Amino acid sequence: MEKRVILDRPPAAEADAGHARAPRPLRFAARTGWDLSGNSLASVLAEARGAGRALVDFTESNPTRCGIVEAAHLIAPLGEPRGERYAPLPLGDPAARAAVSRYYQERGLDVDPSSVVLTASTSEAYGWLLKLLAERGDDVLVPVPSYPLLEYLACLEDVALTPYPLLREEGWRIDLGALERAAGERTRAVVLVHPNNPTGSFVRRDDAAALEACARERGLALIVDEVFGDYAHGDLAPDRLPSFAGARQALTFVLSGLSKVMALPQLKLGWIAVSGPPELAAAALERLEVIADTYLSVGTPVQLALPEILASRAPVQRAILSRVQANLAALDAAIAARAGGAVRRLPIDGGWYATLEVPRVHDEDGWVELLVRDEGIIVHPGYFFDMPRDGFLVVGLLLDPDVFAEAALRLVGRIARAISGE
Amino acid sequence: MEKRVILDRPPAAEADAGHARAPRPLRFAARTGWDLSGNSLASVLAEARGAGRALVDFTESNPTRCGIVEAAHLIAPLGEPRGERYAPLPLGDPAARAAVSRYYQERGLDVDPSSVVLTASTSEAYGWLLKLLAERGDDVLVPVPSYPLLEYLACLEDVALTPYPLLREEGWRIDLGALERAAGERTRAVVLVHPNNPTGSFVRRDDAAALEACARERGLALIVDEVFGDYAHGDLAPDRLPSFAGARQALTFVLSGLSKVMALPQLKLGWIAVSGPPELAAAALERLEVIADTYLSVGTPVQLALPEILASRAPVQRAILSRVQANLAALDAAIAARAGGAVRRLPIDGGWYATLEVPRVHDEDGWVELLVRDEGIIVHPGYFFDMPRDGFLVVGLLLDPDVFAEAALRLVGRIARAISGE
Ligand SMILES: Cc1ncc(COP(=O)(O)O)c(C=O)c1O
Ligand SMILES: Cc1ncc(COP(=O)(O)O)c(C=O)c1O
Repeated sequence: MEKRVILDRPPAAEADAGHARAPRPLRFAARTGWDLSGNSLASVLAEARGAGRALVDFTESNPTRCGIVEAAHLIAPLGEPRGERYAPLPLGDPAARAAVSRYYQERGLDVDPSSVVLTASTSEAYGWLLKLLAERGDDVLVPVPSYPLLEYLACLEDVALTPYPLLREEGWRIDLGALERAAGERTRAVVLVHPNNPTGSFVRRDDAAALEACARERGLALIVDEVFGDYAHGDLAPDRLPSFAGARQALTFVLSGLSKVMALPQLKLGWIAVSGPPELAAAALERLEVIADTYLSVGTPVQLALPEILASRAPVQRAILSRVQANLAALDAAIAARAGGAVRRLPIDGGWYATLEVPRVHDEDGWVELLVRDEGIIVHPGYFFDMPRDGFLVVGLLLDPDVFAEAALRLVGRIARAISGE
Repeated sequence: MEKRVILDRPPAAEADAGHARAPRPLRFAARTGWDLSGNSLASVLAEARGAGRALVDFTESNPTRCGIVEAAHLIAPLGEPRGERYAPLPLGDPAARAAVSRYYQERGLDVDPSSVVLTASTSEAYGWLLKLLAERGDDVLVPVPSYPLLEYLACLEDVALTPYPLLREEGWRIDLGALERAAGERTRAVVLVHPNNPTGSFVRRDDAAALEACARERGLALIVDEVFGDYAHGDLAPDRLPSFAGARQALTFVLSGLSKVMALPQLKLGWIAVSGPPELAAAALERLEVIADTYLSVGTPVQLALPEILASRAPVQRAILSRVQANLAALDAAIAARAGGAVRRLPIDGGWYATLEVPRVHDEDGWVELLVRDEGIIVHPGYFFDMPRDGFLVVGLLLDPDVFAEAALRLVGRIARAISGE
């Protein structure tokens, strides 16, 4: 990197005057002024967790805690002596980038190694892309409902989030008209979570094409979070796009990483695959390289092990998918046996979550509290994901199948009893 | 984390109107508008490196390339099966934080485990602290001369850097008067690199006390980069402060990590030790915890191995220190033998670098070009570190001692010949 000149701001006149000043208190940046007091639901859950009572936590999303995959053989390569040497290439070790390219090629997606940027996580990838694309006060469009991760990431980059709706009645397809209306003068990018979390929906091919044309015309980038992209439940319907990786009309950043692809969030390796009009993609990569060079945040041992780790993904993904599908079947069986029409499971194409539509005799917090108090069962309220209205609960599908099946019966049964007035 | 409301920015009137708009080009954020063309010095060096010629690179700062430490036994623990489980505590694994605390206790510095924040690197730590302390357009004070790392980090957080001078004639002590004049209404923090790079100078105790009082009165935080803190050359003079870790008058963040403490930059583990007035320190930790929770960027295997890794530091640091001191002695011997008064080595208290004062018959770029062309020797120009005037070259002290000693003779000899007109 070339040396740049340090900004030489002239000292304020006040500071020059030399006379006594009142002491000033230290103030933290306003962006960190989070309300850390916790809400009442949080305290109910903390109390239940603290009481030493056996709980079934349907919000568990940490795959390493669910006994699905024996991962010791995936961790072992990190200890190899090759990790002694540090060759800090900002975009990542060439063999690791080639392994990510191969991962896409094997899915029939054309991603060149040179368009791959390694990051420590998807979260870091989001941060870098916001730095690349948005000035302070600019905004990015985010799907609603979706995973709340982006709120903190955007807040920490001083970027605003503008929601665009997904239409539940139409299989959570993107409301393109609303998206176009939501895009303003300062909008810089559209985020897609694909498949979305918790709706488990993939984008329709026709919507993807329309969205790309819109993004291209308006100078917007697409940021597509495909961390769950390998977890379609069975064959995807032909009208759905499996992935945004590969050649694209608009500047597109596809995000993924070991966190979900290998169920190894603790290894801290994610990536961005850049595509779109060649000049734009090249310019984006050049700038991302400087950002990456500033942090150099991906560990060498995991980079060097990446080809080996990714090559082992088939059995890992099979184990996770069969776990998820078994739990989904158990959930459906519990609904068939116990719901008496009171609980409906929304259809999903993929992912690790299911959404339940429940009667509105309680609000979502009321349901969560009732379930934890009476059954020792923890679920997410739908509003955690900005569901379009009250009346949804979200459960993860990773738990041990015996535990899951037994608790699903109690969960559904308790809801059914509640509306029959018990 | 509690769910926060997504900002619902009303769409711009223009977007509502529905009539045709001209296509807009995509623009990247201005902060990424770096000049990536490279300067003439960069191309001379690239050419020399590309020519396949044997070069001696005195700018080498990657300890893993210098054959100092056999590190395989420090990497091996990363492969242990315990790394299978992910327990994502934002501030870090408790045993790892305790190991950092112990590292300070063993140096006689009182750092509680609860005040330690793990990060993926010192670079990330800087980024988090800028997010914590500064609004966009605020500034932080940085020492001059010093290491240029912070320019990119500050740029990526939209924070300005305001230089304050170190006084060469007084052993690089802080010019406190100039620092106070440089601090303006929007100044939020003072950065110290301690010992500084490349000047190798530790802060004087009396200056530290005055600086803390000034920071406390003006509501400034101290960010103290102590990555080279273990590398004093021999006993530090009693009027120098060994470290800012431990109880402090002002809110203080001491930064360090495995990059220099263990010469293992590739493992990606750094830390922040927070101290200062208890309420302020507690508030800072609470906010840093939310920032850390947003990225969760430190790998589990390295966290779990940290106690073991840090416990092995004595032989590593001994090996590095004896390498650095041997090379420094060789440099001084070369000057005594060949310089004929043309080259002076500035005094240093510690660190991995030495600064040479050279005649101004060439500017610094001229010296660098001449040395690479005639001797195949690469050095840093002083301006890379913002030295106060022209006429300095900086060399790293990590190279193989035989290579170093031989090249030091040629380096000094070539400079001496240049001023005698050869
Ligand atoms: C949709 C989605 N994207 C990204 C992430 C974070 O991934 P990483 O661990 O790579 O930061 C999550 C984590 O649950 C997620 O659900
Ligand atoms: C003074 C100083 N601080 C920080 C760093 C970066 O450390 P890290 O690898 O932990 O980001 C360096 C790297 O050379 C350095 O010289």
